[in-house]
Amino acid sequence: MSRRTDASSVPDLVERARAGEARAVARLISLVEDESPLLREVMAALAPHTGHAQVIGITGSPGVGKSTSTNALVSELRKQDKRVGVLAVDPSSPFSGGALLGDRVRMQDHALDRDVYIRSMASRGHLGGLSWTTPQALRVLDAAGCDVILIETVGVGQSEVEIAGLADTTMVLLAPGMGDGIQAAKAGILEIGDLYVVNKADRDGADQVRRDLRSMLQLAERPEGAWRPPIVKTVAQKGEGLDEVVAEIDQHREWLTASGELEKRRTRRARDEIEAIAVTALRKRWGDVHGRSELDDLAAAVAAGETDPYAAADELLDTFAD
Amino acid sequence: MSRRTDASSVPDLVERARAGEARAVARLISLVEDESPLLREVMAALAPHTGHAQVIGITGSPGVGKSTSTNALVSELRKQDKRVGVLAVDPSSPFSGGALLGDRVRMQDHALDRDVYIRSMASRGHLGGLSWTTPQALRVLDAAGCDVILIETVGVGQSEVEIAGLADTTMVLLAPGMGDGIQAAKAGILEIGDLYVVNKADRDGADQVRRDLRSMLQLAERPEGAWRPPIVKTVAQKGEGLDEVVAEIDQHREWLTASGELEKRRTRRARDEIEAIAVTALRKRWGDVHGRSELDDLAAAVAAGETDPYAAADELLDTFAD
Repeated sequence: MSRRTDASSVPDLVERARAGEARAVARLISLVEDESPLLREVMAALAPHTGHAQVIGITGSPGVGKSTSTNALVSELRKQDKRVGVLAVDPSSPFSGGALLGDRVRMQDHALDRDVYIRSMASRGHLGGLSWTTPQALRVLDAAGCDVILIETVGVGQSEVEIAGLADTTMVLLAPGMGDGIQAAKAGILEIGDLYVVNKADRDGADQVRRDLRSMLQLAERPEGAWRPPIVKTVAQKGEGLDEVVAEIDQHREWLTASGELEKRRTRRARDEIEAIAVTALRKRWGDVHGRSELDDLAAAVAAGETDPYAAADELLDTFAD
Repeated sequence: MSRRTDASSVPDLVERARAGEARAVARLISLVEDESPLLREVMAALAPHTGHAQVIGITGSPGVGKSTSTNALVSELRKQDKRVGVLAVDPSSPFSGGALLGDRVRMQDHALDRDVYIRSMASRGHLGGLSWTTPQALRVLDAAGCDVILIETVGVGQSEVEIAGLADTTMVLLAPGMGDGIQAAKAGILEIGDLYVVNKADRDGADQVRRDLRSMLQLAERPEGAWRPPIVKTVAQKGEGLDEVVAEIDQHREWLTASGELEKRRTRRARDEIEAIAVTALRKRWGDVHGRSELDDLAAAVAAGETDPYAAADELLDTFAD
């Protein structure tokens, strides 16, 4: 297949991706990653076919066994004959632009399964991160007929919050020996999990992790009718406990639907996506006008103390409104 | 002092902050943190008095001794009679809104020093993070006459990059036993450091860390005349090596000035700041128009697959341009 894609090939690519052809899916996600000018057409063509997939975020500190758990979860979902997409996002390398793929090799279990699509995505720095390309990659996998999409991310600060914004269900992994309760609280994970998994449950300290987590979760005030995140123990390496994880994900899905929260989350997700695209378009305009941009002149004035950033922002917005 | 501040008290507050009154500085930074509507006036009043302070970013993984190093660096700078501001930003708790202050107590050495101003700032989630409030807190400290401002941040992914964007000089801390070279490469620290400090240099493995770091830094291609980041060994706990750190910071400062890079960095910083303010203002408008917003309607349409996010973003921008 040629690497070149032009506007005329978009409908064909979309058609083939919808039929489940892995190379067409790969090509579309590459267009997303490259921020191709064709994305507008791609997204327009995909839109009517989206909204089906269940999106599960998987996050946790390095070393808790995210890749192994993702792998085991794929196996479990395959028992139910679900088509599964996996997006592995590495937000820790904002500059290199290339994900370090070490852990990916573990996913080889599913390399030959036509109904599993696995993709590593590099995250882009700053504003980019998860927020810019990941939702669009989700759309591709969704339209390509995935029943479930797993987004796996190295859980550190920002990216955990972002993944919670993207997923229908956010699964937070912990493991014994990975740090105490304060670490958990610091990482902000207590606010984002819909489901907590204590992995490596055959090791010393697993029950302590569960107890600590439970008491911390109980401290959080939750309104009447709110979802109370369960805690499941697993040994992902041996595939143990994954059936329970899938059962809890299904429970959460039912609650999401019944409570109206699913629609709310998805609308919020669309809102963030629209905003990100609009803001990116604006930044481009601000940066591009007349060679040396208005923004550059304003920035020089602010740096020199001649004006302040608020007054400069007003000027920038006025220019644009003309 | 009353917690209430109104427009009429802004000039007085700014005057007192410029005279070095700690409570006035504290009040102004609180206005920044609260995103007070008075900020426009505050920033306008501060603008003519900014641009003096040297901004040093201090970052590194948890456990390398950031707070201890910051503390020791403050002592060293005080020997030169410099006025020092410290902003400690904890980006790992995006939801709680409150920084966990454990490490702060170590800074008590300087609690009674009138020429040291120390402030912990919580980082706000998502777009907020460092980028929104920190540059404005910098402006306050700058106008308040700080010669040097140290920004200390837990170094994880995103926030390291952000701190490099804010600082004139970015100092990356490492320590033996904190992980191997791949960890360093993953965290993207090789691209952001102007100065590397191997702390806890009295421990086994410190020389190995330095060797590994040096060979990794040598792999990076740097254009002719570019700054070559030095590596300094310290034992911050005992104040050892900090004189050399200060000497290297001064060297870097000289290079920044001579090469024109200082002006470039500061203009870029102002540019980011203006953009962040403009984008925030736009988001507010998009969210606020006519009760239920245009953006909400568009998001619902995207979530339902009736339109795609690009078309929705176009509509949003069109509405605004009218």
